[in-house]
Amino acid sequence: MRHFLTTADWSRSELQGLLDRAAAFKSGTVSRSLEGKSIALLFFNPSLRTRSSFDIGAHQLGGHAIVLDAKGATWPLEFSDGTVMDGSEEEHVREAARVLSSYVDLIAIRCFPEFKDWGTEREDPMISAFAEHATVPVINMETIVHPCQELALMLALQERMGSVEGKEFLLTWVPHPKPLNTAVANSALLIASKFGMNVRMLVPDEVYRLDERYMSAAEAFVGEAGSSLTLTTHVEAAYSGADVVYAKSWGALPFYGNWDDEAPFRAKGADFMITPEKMAMTNNGVVSHCLPMRRNVKIADAVVDSPAFLGIEEAGNRLHVQKAVMESLATQGGS
Amino acid sequence: MRHFLTTADWSRSELQGLLDRAAAFKSGTVSRSLEGKSIALLFFNPSLRTRSSFDIGAHQLGGHAIVLDAKGATWPLEFSDGTVMDGSEEEHVREAARVLSSYVDLIAIRCFPEFKDWGTEREDPMISAFAEHATVPVINMETIVHPCQELALMLALQERMGSVEGKEFLLTWVPHPKPLNTAVANSALLIASKFGMNVRMLVPDEVYRLDERYMSAAEAFVGEAGSSLTLTTHVEAAYSGADVVYAKSWGALPFYGNWDDEAPFRAKGADFMITPEKMAMTNNGVVSHCLPMRRNVKIADAVVDSPAFLGIEEAGNRLHVQKAVMESLATQGGS
Amino acid sequence: MRHFLTTADWSRSELQGLLDRAAAFKSGTVSRSLEGKSIALLFFNPSLRTRSSFDIGAHQLGGHAIVLDAKGATWPLEFSDGTVMDGSEEEHVREAARVLSSYVDLIAIRCFPEFKDWGTEREDPMISAFAEHATVPVINMETIVHPCQELALMLALQERMGSVEGKEFLLTWVPHPKPLNTAVANSALLIASKFGMNVRMLVPDEVYRLDERYMSAAEAFVGEAGSSLTLTTHVEAAYSGADVVYAKSWGALPFYGNWDDEAPFRAKGADFMITPEKMAMTNNGVVSHCLPMRRNVKIADAVVDSPAFLGIEEAGNRLHVQKAVMESLATQGGS
Repeated sequence: MRHFLTTADWSRSELQGLLDRAAAFKSGTVSRSLEGKSIALLFFNPSLRTRSSFDIGAHQLGGHAIVLDAKGATWPLEFSDGTVMDGSEEEHVREAARVLSSYVDLIAIRCFPEFKDWGTEREDPMISAFAEHATVPVINMETIVHPCQELALMLALQERMGSVEGKEFLLTWVPHPKPLNTAVANSALLIASKFGMNVRMLVPDEVYRLDERYMSAAEAFVGEAGSSLTLTTHVEAAYSGADVVYAKSWGALPFYGNWDDEAPFRAKGADFMITPEKMAMTNNGVVSHCLPMRRNVKIADAVVDSPAFLGIEEAGNRLHVQKAVMESLATQGGS
Repeated sequence: MRHFLTTADWSRSELQGLLDRAAAFKSGTVSRSLEGKSIALLFFNPSLRTRSSFDIGAHQLGGHAIVLDAKGATWPLEFSDGTVMDGSEEEHVREAARVLSSYVDLIAIRCFPEFKDWGTEREDPMISAFAEHATVPVINMETIVHPCQELALMLALQERMGSVEGKEFLLTWVPHPKPLNTAVANSALLIASKFGMNVRMLVPDEVYRLDERYMSAAEAFVGEAGSSLTLTTHVEAAYSGADVVYAKSWGALPFYGNWDDEAPFRAKGADFMITPEKMAMTNNGVVSHCLPMRRNVKIADAVVDSPAFLGIEEAGNRLHVQKAVMESLATQGGS
Repeated sequence: MRHFLTTADWSRSELQGLLDRAAAFKSGTVSRSLEGKSIALLFFNPSLRTRSSFDIGAHQLGGHAIVLDAKGATWPLEFSDGTVMDGSEEEHVREAARVLSSYVDLIAIRCFPEFKDWGTEREDPMISAFAEHATVPVINMETIVHPCQELALMLALQERMGSVEGKEFLLTWVPHPKPLNTAVANSALLIASKFGMNVRMLVPDEVYRLDERYMSAAEAFVGEAGSSLTLTTHVEAAYSGADVVYAKSWGALPFYGNWDDEAPFRAKGADFMITPEKMAMTNNGVVSHCLPMRRNVKIADAVVDSPAFLGIEEAGNRLHVQKAVMESLATQGGS
């Protein structure tokens, strides 16, 4: 049984298959592949697009979604094995995953890292425990990666420019009032490199390197594709000739959870907001950001409101790519 | 493309068309006019009836509703243009409205005023921003007016008394432990005057006049209809001969957000609870209140539990009038 | 019109009818008995299984469920008659129940006791008020009893051992970091005795006797069935030869809401966790617990992860027994 936890587990051609199916859905293809089936959407964190698009997508496929707020509306969950559960957690994932599996055909989970200990959190323990104990496929709605967003971005890029192979993809760190998790940055790096783009990362300082797991995966992907991966702190070098600019803010992993010490490094990127001036250096490039997005902090209004901005298409594509993922997982084994 | 933001944008005959359709739904008319369509219900404030009746109504029309809690379950939203979004708001309505529009066919919003600055809040900025940026119709589930409640009330009145033209409608301020917003009071004033009733407002003091926008709209409506609008602080004059008594509590606008200074004026209405004695002065009148309603504070048990009380029918009618509104908006242009 | 508030209102053969129908659903029987109907799920407390299984069950029967969070997403509700509602409650059950009844065909309610005054709370005032004022059937999703859990447990036992008549059923108090309500303990006692099992209760001290209403109901049931009911504080006597071990923690009623004084009695049960050693004393017994369940506090991992553990089947059965209950109530009078 296959899960959709990270695009790293899926080959480029499998992912392209999902993208092609998503494009067909977007063009009007109708499917009732979830008829009589249901999906549980388990949220440990807030969501606007994800809960909307999964719920509506499941409904459009003939299925039924239930939304569970894991903080507040349900019980706090323990995921470690062997724990004496005398703290605040009232239920173990071993039970929750098996019982939910007896009610529904798919389980989707959003569970952000908690900025306590990256050494533990980089193992994605909650969704990993669900994937281990559930007897139905599990879908990642954003944990330490955001694979549905990756597909939505790639579909938007292919719609705008056809094949992305060999295009120049800039992942730029942008300012934000507080340190954020690296999920979307990891994901942008993975998908751009996997699809054969030349990837440039622009960061305020080397401390903003992403986790070695993702850096080395991207190295391997560009090696296979014959493309390149570079990390720079120079704005002009990064923007010059870029075909795609993708914005994301994140906290530097060496200061994970101890953000006060990160402040001086963060300050080096104070001018990293995406502006018309920066966009003028690109190869008539497009620009995007997963939503939510703070205007005039990460990207200036003049850029967001220009035709170069792909963020609305990317977010809209969530509906279609997730239908492709749900259909693919729910019909494994030919059911 | 038409929205349903306030009944002020709809003619009396258009509104009567919605009421007639609602009455047909209540009598058993079946429609699948939302087949394959969906509606997002976006709540910035709590709701019992509204979320239930919209969700069930959409389902009865063959459609699908998703409920989004804008405080807690989704991201805080900014609505002002040009803002540097470095505060607590994480997403701009410009993005949220466009993306939601790409997922659903209708967007309904509840967003109460926040008692900060009436000068700003009287422009209904959040729902106005959604209506501006959404590419699908927007429905008001209560902001500074409550147009669905207006239709539900008017349907209940027409069911009980046929034409309401020329009937005596008393909108009476009633006590409440804390100052409330004026939405339902504004709405009662608008719909009663628009449908040609003689409207009396009973308030503890002149400071409880409603916003000039609604007072002057009502003046215009009664002018057209040849009926009347009066404001009084005298209980007997107000109740004497009334056909309909509608209860609502609200805070006086001159003290908006500075409620301590309102206290002495509020005290003048301490005896304004609706009692059997007051109802005895009416023309065998009916009485109603939108729900929720505090018993024995706003209306005495003996009145609520009498046949004169219309509040349950009014609330029940929400289901039917909202089906009429959703159908009307979703089938614009003949789809 | 019949409600499903407690199994005490239903005969053993009626309950067996529900269990047989549930078993048929589990085996694949399809029913559209809720076609065109809807159910409101009103939660005053958190839930994972209950909201999932009711929502999905209603959908599988062709119906539509709406989930209402009574704390937070809706208005606080008053249930006492004649109250001057000038406190925090904004709506009376008299209105809420009647209005909801006009929208939906079934109302299900979860409302745990609040540990304030058992004399009042043992009357189950909130759900009783809903049952009194609603004009549609009301289903108990756990208040001071948990009748859906009773059916799920009994179905799991019948699946595992056929007839339970004359089997030895041990209800054992188990440790927990804080005092819990007695709902599931009351329910286990009721259903085991009603179905003719010999019931043993193992408690740390006599102060853990359950409310006299349930103790005497169980006495009456075992009297009818010719089986027995015993209360003991001796672990060996309790476990020896047991066919079923059912675990639950609860607070002692004499200290209801004054839990500090309960501590010394609670301490007597510090070793009551279910372990392989204790299970070895049974008649190759099965063991279960309603979920959520704290591992290694109430039951040791080695027991939970053994084939003797029935908790997953029991929880899975919730879906099927609740479909039987909804169908039975929604089709009263032959509709």
